[in-house]
Amino acid sequence: MITVLAGGVGAARLLAGLVQVVDPAELTAVVNTGDDVVLHGLHISPDLDTITYTLAGAVNPETGWGLRGETWQAMGALARFEAVRPPGSGAAATWFSLGDQDLATHLYRTHRLREGAPLSTVTAEVTAAWGLEVRLLPMTDDRVETRVEVAGEGEVGFQEYFVQRRHAVPVTSVRLDGIDTAVPAPGVLAAVDDARVVVIAPSNPIVSIGPLLALAPLRARLEAARDRVVAVSPIVAGRALKGPADRLMAELGHEPSVVGVARIYAPVASVLVVDTSDAELAPAVEAEGLRCLVTPTVMHGPAEAAALGRTVLGAVPA
Amino acid sequence: MITVLAGGVGAARLLAGLVQVVDPAELTAVVNTGDDVVLHGLHISPDLDTITYTLAGAVNPETGWGLRGETWQAMGALARFEAVRPPGSGAAATWFSLGDQDLATHLYRTHRLREGAPLSTVTAEVTAAWGLEVRLLPMTDDRVETRVEVAGEGEVGFQEYFVQRRHAVPVTSVRLDGIDTAVPAPGVLAAVDDARVVVIAPSNPIVSIGPLLALAPLRARLEAARDRVVAVSPIVAGRALKGPADRLMAELGHEPSVVGVARIYAPVASVLVVDTSDAELAPAVEAEGLRCLVTPTVMHGPAEAAALGRTVLGAVPA
Repeated sequence: MITVLAGGVGAARLLAGLVQVVDPAELTAVVNTGDDVVLHGLHISPDLDTITYTLAGAVNPETGWGLRGETWQAMGALARFEAVRPPGSGAAATWFSLGDQDLATHLYRTHRLREGAPLSTVTAEVTAAWGLEVRLLPMTDDRVETRVEVAGEGEVGFQEYFVQRRHAVPVTSVRLDGIDTAVPAPGVLAAVDDARVVVIAPSNPIVSIGPLLALAPLRARLEAARDRVVAVSPIVAGRALKGPADRLMAELGHEPSVVGVARIYAPVASVLVVDTSDAELAPAVEAEGLRCLVTPTVMHGPAEAAALGRTVLGAVPA
Repeated sequence: MITVLAGGVGAARLLAGLVQVVDPAELTAVVNTGDDVVLHGLHISPDLDTITYTLAGAVNPETGWGLRGETWQAMGALARFEAVRPPGSGAAATWFSLGDQDLATHLYRTHRLREGAPLSTVTAEVTAAWGLEVRLLPMTDDRVETRVEVAGEGEVGFQEYFVQRRHAVPVTSVRLDGIDTAVPAPGVLAAVDDARVVVIAPSNPIVSIGPLLALAPLRARLEAARDRVVAVSPIVAGRALKGPADRLMAELGHEPSVVGVARIYAPVASVLVVDTSDAELAPAVEAEGLRCLVTPTVMHGPAEAAALGRTVLGAVPA
């Protein structure tokens, strides 16, 4: 059993590498749901969907999210309503672009949630529909909402920060609404307990992996499993490969480097995998109490992803 | 001021005729919402949308509902989930086909309703977005649900009867859930009080006009306005032009003819407009206490619709 703590695109790419080197049926991904958003009455789970579409081979390769060959008729038609939406209304929100085929996933999920099915059950159904062998678990069936305090603007939802403002605004704090009462979804704690290796994917440490680590029962199990936990740094040469991890870390008082990543993960991971371009920082990483493993981590394609997967799985004693 | 009590396709066609013969800004349509349905978490108002799309010149001319040039990517993708939906779940309901552009209307409506806007407000916004000059009022902002008792099957929602079962099953009763506590939407009663002519459109008397007549305060105003109320029979030569009005009337103990229609409308209308093919039934209609006006009522195109509109407006004394 291998368990991966996962955000969106970076995690999806690593998982696509791992399925090449181990039996996919032995893989479980515990996925962030703090980014989930209700738009137009639809429940959208961006990280779950990015991983699902990637592992199904259906993801848009240009963006790393959304579906290949997607059409945008619904969003195009929604623009008509922008002119009539009253001030203060969030309706006709075309800033969060939902493709027509992608909409089907949200329609199904929303319908099932309204029927009372927990998100973990719906996720199992959605991944079965897409033919996935990897098991995807939302971190929780409860509502956890990542809220971002934007300087000079106040608190906004994660997607309002990430997509609508293109994460190009200064952040003063991040709050995980609902985290204190949220319970890990069925199977999540066992997935950590039973795993030979737990991999923290190269996702944003603050807003993608952060919610998983802030889920107290999950964090406790990770601390107990620390010797079997390997993290992959999403920061390469001081920069996030994708998204605002570097900027967000700096703004929230973390060093935007593999050393800053090491400090965040030290309580729960015993190994940090860093890119060769950060080789010189290995001693500083190890000074934080983790073993530092230096290897190419940038996944340009399936071959690099598989190689990284193999390295990560070999990073802890069998 | 002209007010039209309206269901879906038949009402939309008559309204498209009326806008040719009077200033559209003088027209109000009070529209059935008993057919409204929540699917995939989206609030769908089929009658309001059919009228909106028709008056906007955007309706699919083949079907009389939906949008011209529509695409069906979302529904196509939804089919993937039919195989994984558990028994008893209504999810992945592709029997109610939602076009991609049409979805935008439902996304907007649902978002606004969830923000707390009443349906009448949202309807004003949607019709403004489509550039309508005619005022559309939902009969109520409250939830009224037309429920249909199907022989040997039990009670189902209206769309489950109408679309999913293609209204090809025997009906033993129709129940309007919520009607007793529903309040007419703002403007509805005044639209009847202030109208020079109130037109009951050629819609299904049981399930389209029925909910409006069952709304007690509205019915009381119609009874008081009876001298100014003109109904157009949706039954022509014993048959419904579209949909199950004939069959439904027979199953529920009404004569499926213009005479049966006359009996239903006699308390609230003083004139019944019937098609020339029913000319011989005029005396029987008048025996029910309404004046019978015989004229071509089948609207093959804009010219016939305009002619019918002109006739209807001239049917009561100025």
